[in-house]
Amino acid sequence: MKARAYAPATIGNFAAGFDALGMALAPLDGSLLGDVVEAELTGRNRGGLLVRGPMAKSLPKNPRENLVWHALDLFSHRLRRYGLEPAAVRLILHKNLPVCSGLGSSASSIAAALTALNAVYCEPFSPETLLEMAGEAEGRVSGGAHYDNVAPALLGGLQLLAPGECLTPLRLPFFERAVVVIVHPELQLPTARARAVLPRSLPLSLCVAAGSNLAALVHALHARDRDLFSECLRDLVAEPRRKKLVRGFDAVQAAALEAGALGCSLSGSGPSLFAVADSRREADRIAGAMCDAFRRAGVESRGMLCRTDPEGARLLP
Amino acid sequence: MKARAYAPATIGNFAAGFDALGMALAPLDGSLLGDVVEAELTGRNRGGLLVRGPMAKSLPKNPRENLVWHALDLFSHRLRRYGLEPAAVRLILHKNLPVCSGLGSSASSIAAALTALNAVYCEPFSPETLLEMAGEAEGRVSGGAHYDNVAPALLGGLQLLAPGECLTPLRLPFFERAVVVIVHPELQLPTARARAVLPRSLPLSLCVAAGSNLAALVHALHARDRDLFSECLRDLVAEPRRKKLVRGFDAVQAAALEAGALGCSLSGSGPSLFAVADSRREADRIAGAMCDAFRRAGVESRGMLCRTDPEGARLLP
Repeated sequence: MKARAYAPATIGNFAAGFDALGMALAPLDGSLLGDVVEAELTGRNRGGLLVRGPMAKSLPKNPRENLVWHALDLFSHRLRRYGLEPAAVRLILHKNLPVCSGLGSSASSIAAALTALNAVYCEPFSPETLLEMAGEAEGRVSGGAHYDNVAPALLGGLQLLAPGECLTPLRLPFFERAVVVIVHPELQLPTARARAVLPRSLPLSLCVAAGSNLAALVHALHARDRDLFSECLRDLVAEPRRKKLVRGFDAVQAAALEAGALGCSLSGSGPSLFAVADSRREADRIAGAMCDAFRRAGVESRGMLCRTDPEGARLLP
Repeated sequence: MKARAYAPATIGNFAAGFDALGMALAPLDGSLLGDVVEAELTGRNRGGLLVRGPMAKSLPKNPRENLVWHALDLFSHRLRRYGLEPAAVRLILHKNLPVCSGLGSSASSIAAALTALNAVYCEPFSPETLLEMAGEAEGRVSGGAHYDNVAPALLGGLQLLAPGECLTPLRLPFFERAVVVIVHPELQLPTARARAVLPRSLPLSLCVAAGSNLAALVHALHARDRDLFSECLRDLVAEPRRKKLVRGFDAVQAAALEAGALGCSLSGSGPSLFAVADSRREADRIAGAMCDAFRRAGVESRGMLCRTDPEGARLLP
């Protein structure tokens, strides 16, 4: 009655896909990049939540404000709807991802927690139900259910969220050799603040351009058209408004493109940026150029080379 | 120094793809559905434009207001840019398509005219240049360059227009056996009037939903996922505003879906509707149900069964 689950970091708002496209990340060096949650049914003993790991200090002191606690709350609520009485659970969150970084830290915690809980209860819920709960939990922190981080955190891959009655994300193909560069500056940008700069409405022509740009990106991925992919890997909606919140953005993006990136934009709502490279060698050069540009803007940053994580949330031995 | 060109009718605003997706049509019975333009260099004699065909009467009396004349004007202007002096040309337009029908009548005339002109001048212009001119000519009638009719009219197939520096439409795959039902009611709806009911801006959430719906439709076509295609074959942007301009719309759409259509929406800006069927047999039933529904609303209509025209504008012997 004990399980330990991992869920990867993710890029939400994957450039062309504001609120609609997200990618799960796996570091090239084989390490893990994401939070881990242990869950244990404690029988009649009291449950609780412990937070450990390098980023534990940046989380709220009160465990009940922790997203993992919200995830447990939603999970228990759903069990009761099915006529099951939830037992007390002891949770340990190993907080590895930096918060407010644009790397899907909330989604990683939520996906790991739900996966661990589903395991200790012998899998009562389908992936679809877990996704629904994860979106709801994410909504409690970012002010509205968004699935572009939780879907890849749970399911892996590059996921397109299509609006519809049933929430089934669509797994898109991706270039096998492409390397994703993540550059994480020493800045924090709360999602709510990044949301606040977005307009409530968009001109019809921009709406058409953004939609067809995303559609063309999807076509490029299926057709394995690298040049078209590169042309469409851009954010017409959020980036123009959000980039001013990230010191050095223009210079870092320009450095990435100058160094050969197929595209470069904010990861999630920032402040991290991601870029897509053709190969590991190019990725190394691009990461260096981006970190240099941040440094010239007076911001320290860290680069990482990743591929798509095909699996998403999973149990660890 | 004489050429005769045909260009097919088209569905613009192909449901999910407002202003971005269009399909060229070829009737199942092997007949042609589109306008024909003959062009002849007259040497030193005077040029001119004659209009013939069943729909000739619905065009402006003054040939200089005719779109084919605009196409000639743009073509000649472009020749001069290249240092060539255009000769006098005699044009005959066989106007077969009904105007203001939603079937891309303007685009058909323009595409046929440009193709015939390019032929008599020994192909000075590339397809890209012809497309640019066609969009400009279309803009003179609909109040802004739109390519979702002219691109398939010139190039055939199902074409996605992606925004970008170079205007290269993307040919999407389509279900091979699918049949497209066109129902053309005895109503006229000028494009400018249908444009006037559109909002200038859309809420951000609707913009995201419409964009990801189009992207999911493109994914469905590549993945040959019929159910997903059916779910995404809907217009979240224009149809809700425009349908009130077409008497009986709701009943006709409901009849199509009830009869098994994968989707049904306005063709272009209406008043014609199109529906997609799995097979010829289904298409027959759907066309019948749609015409019946129009009749109950007091509108006579005509149904046609089509496939995608793979070729687009072409010379006739």
